[in-house]
Formats: sequence, structure tokens, C-alpha cells
Amino acid sequence: MTKLEQTLQQIKPLDEEVMEKTQARLDDLTKPVGSLGMLENIAKQIAGITGSVVPELPKKAAILMAGDHGIVKEGVAPFPQEVTPQMVLNFVNGGAAMSVLARHENAKLYVVDIGVASDLPDVPNIIKRKVAYGTKNMAEGPAMTYEEATQAVEVGIDIAEMVIREGAGIIAIGEMGIGNTSPSSAIIATYSNLPVKNVVGRGTGVDDEKLKIKIAAIEKALTVNKPNPKNPLDVLSKVGGFEIAGLTGVILACAANRVPVIIDGFISGAAAVIAKEMSPLAVNYMLGSHLSEEPGHKIILDFLGIKPILMMNMRLGEGTGAALAMNVIDASLKILKEMSTFSEAGVSNKL
Amino acid sequence: MTKLEQTLQQIKPLDEEVMEKTQARLDDLTKPVGSLGMLENIAKQIAGITGSVVPELPKKAAILMAGDHGIVKEGVAPFPQEVTPQMVLNFVNGGAAMSVLARHENAKLYVVDIGVASDLPDVPNIIKRKVAYGTKNMAEGPAMTYEEATQAVEVGIDIAEMVIREGAGIIAIGEMGIGNTSPSSAIIATYSNLPVKNVVGRGTGVDDEKLKIKIAAIEKALTVNKPNPKNPLDVLSKVGGFEIAGLTGVILACAANRVPVIIDGFISGAAAVIAKEMSPLAVNYMLGSHLSEEPGHKIILDFLGIKPILMMNMRLGEGTGAALAMNVIDASLKILKEMSTFSEAGVSNKL
Repeated sequence: MTKLEQTLQQIKPLDEEVMEKTQARLDDLTKPVGSLGMLENIAKQIAGITGSVVPELPKKAAILMAGDHGIVKEGVAPFPQEVTPQMVLNFVNGGAAMSVLARHENAKLYVVDIGVASDLPDVPNIIKRKVAYGTKNMAEGPAMTYEEATQAVEVGIDIAEMVIREGAGIIAIGEMGIGNTSPSSAIIATYSNLPVKNVVGRGTGVDDEKLKIKIAAIEKALTVNKPNPKNPLDVLSKVGGFEIAGLTGVILACAANRVPVIIDGFISGAAAVIAKEMSPLAVNYMLGSHLSEEPGHKIILDFLGIKPILMMNMRLGEGTGAALAMNVIDASLKILKEMSTFSEAGVSNKL
Repeated sequence: MTKLEQTLQQIKPLDEEVMEKTQARLDDLTKPVGSLGMLENIAKQIAGITGSVVPELPKKAAILMAGDHGIVKEGVAPFPQEVTPQMVLNFVNGGAAMSVLARHENAKLYVVDIGVASDLPDVPNIIKRKVAYGTKNMAEGPAMTYEEATQAVEVGIDIAEMVIREGAGIIAIGEMGIGNTSPSSAIIATYSNLPVKNVVGRGTGVDDEKLKIKIAAIEKALTVNKPNPKNPLDVLSKVGGFEIAGLTGVILACAANRVPVIIDGFISGAAAVIAKEMSPLAVNYMLGSHLSEEPGHKIILDFLGIKPILMMNMRLGEGTGAALAMNVIDASLKILKEMSTFSEAGVSNKL
């Protein structure tokens, strides 16, 4: 059995019995039943994931995967490809948005080169697990081989297992890769059966002219490759990306190891869609974070059946939305743990 | 000149020059222009409020005002009135939702009895500034006198000035008062010109039967009192509440002292509507926090022109949504301060 098959087999349902006990405690706390909304749902979900009625606050980590995309040759992105390795250095040097937010949330940031198109310098804190020097141009043929797709998913599983061994009890996912809203859009179009123009957005900021080029390139990729939605690895290999495949692996490993995983924006969402297709149970281990400005993100969240916490018109990726959600998730666990019950506080319940 | 008049006179526009410099720095940071959405807007607004291009992280405080409501005699609330003083004790004893979240956000919580219907025991940390033992039943006549309304607003100004003197650089507002969604609904109906049934919600959880009673009671209060929207103190006194008036004062004092104030849910929003009517400039000092489950809250936020950060189907009040926003607001200031610029990080800008 391959590592991927093993991981998929290890994914089990949430612990319903624990969740019922958590719900009973939530309903006994000094507030009207259900009045803390999603804050209560999150606490209950984490109880079901971890198997603890009142879970301890988890140690936090974020995994950021970087990869390049052959589709940039079609002119789909407003930034040059050299920005991917430049930003990888920025992440580990602490100056990128995700560096700041991971620090702010007290989450250890793991930065992985899983498919950057150039060699990165030997600096500490870049985890080098390159599967290939970027994908091929999916408008002309498959982005990668089926074996490469499998390998990239398994790199994600490896990394997540390492991060969990190092003590992480919750993991935020993020990505970097110039051009990566294009493969993400192709994946969403495949699974939503919606036309490309309905799921595609401006990414990091293409103008009207480039948006047309982007839509045409993605449509061409789908026509040329005919990805088979019944086989998620086929979709990943034909119209995916290395960082997307890696994040799929991270999500599956989190689910297999009963660790909550926070989904970021559009690209992380595409990885989550693949993970759900590989194991429908995996969605129970996912927590939403923000609703991205990218129009296809709502389609993804609806497809997954997960709800965002924040709505801040963000469209950066990197895991920035997922990082911001961490404080709220901690708050939900403190509500469960630290609030008084009606009898403890001497407060009268409903009339 | 009264304290209220002085405060209103002290409210000035934001510092546009500083905000332009902040925007220039935001646009030079290693991310596509505008891609952090509201996170950027918040940082810029706080720069304009404080007059600092790159503001330091503020010391945090939350002010929670409690008051009772004569309208409960009509049967508008599912909890008995004794819950108001019981919850005040719960707040200062640390067991209420807002106690937990203020602690989580490292915000000092100030709990004020501005109009609870009974005497509270002499325990530390309750700030006793009672204007009266609850409002009168607004379905039968004015909730309070014009003088009491003015006095309650000035209590709020006093408290905020004290909190700011103690070092707070950002203030979240919240409230407690069984029945207080009813006066809030009356205020929103007055300023939105919408029928009561469109702005009213289930508060802490009334059933269909009680919802009808609640709507009828609020309609009766508006008919009996005919509040004059051109005079916000008239509205406050006829269909308001002591905690609502107090929070109006807190907001105005924050604006006068150039301190950002975070608006919580429906009731805090009603106080913000009154503050805006007293001084349209005051809205520039308000930060949105969450979108409440209470249907009228969206109407309030649109009226104020402020945007929520979180959407979590919460409907508790107390300042819980405002508290949760604090971490995100801190994050926005760290983005502004700690991210690298394109040249610092050696990252290529747009093609």
C-alpha cells in the first residue's frame, strides 16, 4: 500500500459521542443557547476531531508550499515568475505578510519548495522537497505526470506528519506561486461544472485584457487535457500544481492524524476540493478562515460545505486568511473551557 | 457649555495627510496593491485617527455598560430581568463570554452599572454610575427624561475619558440589559424609516409568539412617544436605554480624543447611530467588528457606512464581537509596521 493509500485509509469520522458532550456543556454556559454562533460550532468540531470534550489550546503551525506554473507563458499573471523564489526568501526572512501574521498568531511557519522553477539558495528554514522545476504549460498538455502528482501529494503528507511530530495541534495552510490561480480555477471548473469565466478572478490583479487571456488559457487547458473528475490525481496531474498537490497531502495527513486544518483562500481551497474528492471524510477536519475577494472562492467553500470566519476582501493567499482565523479558533476553545455555567455563576436561565 | 457640547466640538476629521503617507507605505509592501483588503483599510484608518503614519500597537480596553428596561413588562424578552445584575457579577467574576474574550485579547474590561434596576452588591470592579433604576416602560411613555438621557451620555464620556487616561489606545464597546434589543430596534426604525418588523429580531431567543408581542410593543412605543429623529437626545430619552446612551457617550469621547472605538453588535450599533446623528464625523473613529445574526444589524452598519470583519452568526452582545476583532486590528498594524518593502526584500514588482 502506498503512503497516500495508507493515509486515506486512516481517515475516520469525527467522534460524535464527544461532540454531544461538548454541545451539552456549551448549552449550559451563561449565554442564550447558540448565541455565540460559529464560535460554538468551531469548539464542538475541534472536540470531535481531537476526541476531547474540552480540548486544550493547540500548538499552532502553518505550512506554506511554493511552486511555479508553466501556464505563465500564456501571459496569465501580472508578476514575473522570478517573484516566486524571491518571495520564498521573503517568507523565511520574516518580511512577507504571512511571516508577519504567523508571528502575530504565534504559529511556527514551515516554508516548502515543492516545485519552484529555479534553485533556491542554501538558507536555513527553506524545506527543499522539489518534485520538479515548475509544472509544464497545461494549455499545451498535462501540467505534470501522474507519478509526479502522487509524489507531490506524498511530500505534503510527509511534511504534515513532521510538523505534527514536532507538536502542532492545528495547522494553517498557504501557498505561493506566480500563476497559481489558473490551475486552481481549472480544478474548480472541473468539479463545479461551471464555465471558466464564472470561477476565474483577477488573482494578484490582472486587467481586463489579461483576464480574457487567462480565461482562454484555462479553457484551452481543460480542452487539451480533459481531466477526469472521477480521478482526483488525474485532475491534479493534468491541470494542477505542485503546491496544490502538496497542500492536498497536508490536508489528508491532518485528517488522518485528527488534527484540525485551516483552509486559506482560493488556491488552498482548490487543494481542499481535491482532498475531499479523495476522501469525503476529510472535510470534517477542515476549518474555514476567510471569504476571499476571488469570486470562485465562495463556490469552493459551498462545495466543501465549510464556512468562513472573516470577510475582509483579502486576495493574497500565502495562508494569510488562515493565520488570522487562528486567534478566533483559540477564542472558541477558551469559551468552551473558561466560561461559567448557569449554576456556577448563579444566573437564572430562560423564563 | 455642557460636557456633551464640549465633546462634540472637539471631534475633528481624520488626518488625510498622514493617511496618504500610510497608503504609500502600504502600496510599497511586498504584496499586490490592495490585496490585503480591509486589513490595509483598518491600518490606514487608525493612522488617520492617531495621526501616526505607522501607529504603535495600542493598549486595549473594553467598556461594558449595563442597564434595565421597563419594556420587559410587555413580555418582550425570554430571560427574567434579574439576569442583568446576575450577569454584571458574572462579568466581574470572569465567567461570562465577554470576560473570557477580553482576557483572551488582553483587553482590560470596565463594567459599568449605568441603569440596572436593582442595587448591586459592593464588589470590586463594578463601576457604579447608575442614572436610574432602569428605564420606564416606553410602550406607555418616555423611557427616561431628557435630562437623564443627557446625564447618561455624559457618564459614558466620563468613563471613556478615564479609560483613555489609564492608557487605552483602542476601546471595544459592549452592553448587557435584558430587553435591550427592543429600544435598539425602536432607534433603528426611527432612523431607517423602515417598519419595525423589518428591523426587529429574536434577541436572545424569543419564539414566534413573543416576537409578535415584541414588534407590537415597539410599534406602540414609537406611536406613543413620536421620537424626533432631528434630535438624537429626544430619541434616546423616549425610546432608548441607559446603557445605549452611555455607549453613545463612550463613542463620542473616543472620537473627541482620537481613539479608535470598536462597535459590537445590534445594541452597540444603535448607540453608534445616535453618536453619528450627534456628530457625523464620529463615524470616522468607528471600526466594525462582526455582522450579527440580528437582522437589523446589517441595516445599522450600512447606515453608519462601516464594515464588519467577522461573520460568525453571533447574537450575544456584551462586546464579544468587538473583542474578537481586536486581534485582527493588531494584525493590520503589524502588517503596516513589520512587512518588507519590494526594495528591502529584493522582490520584483508588477510586469
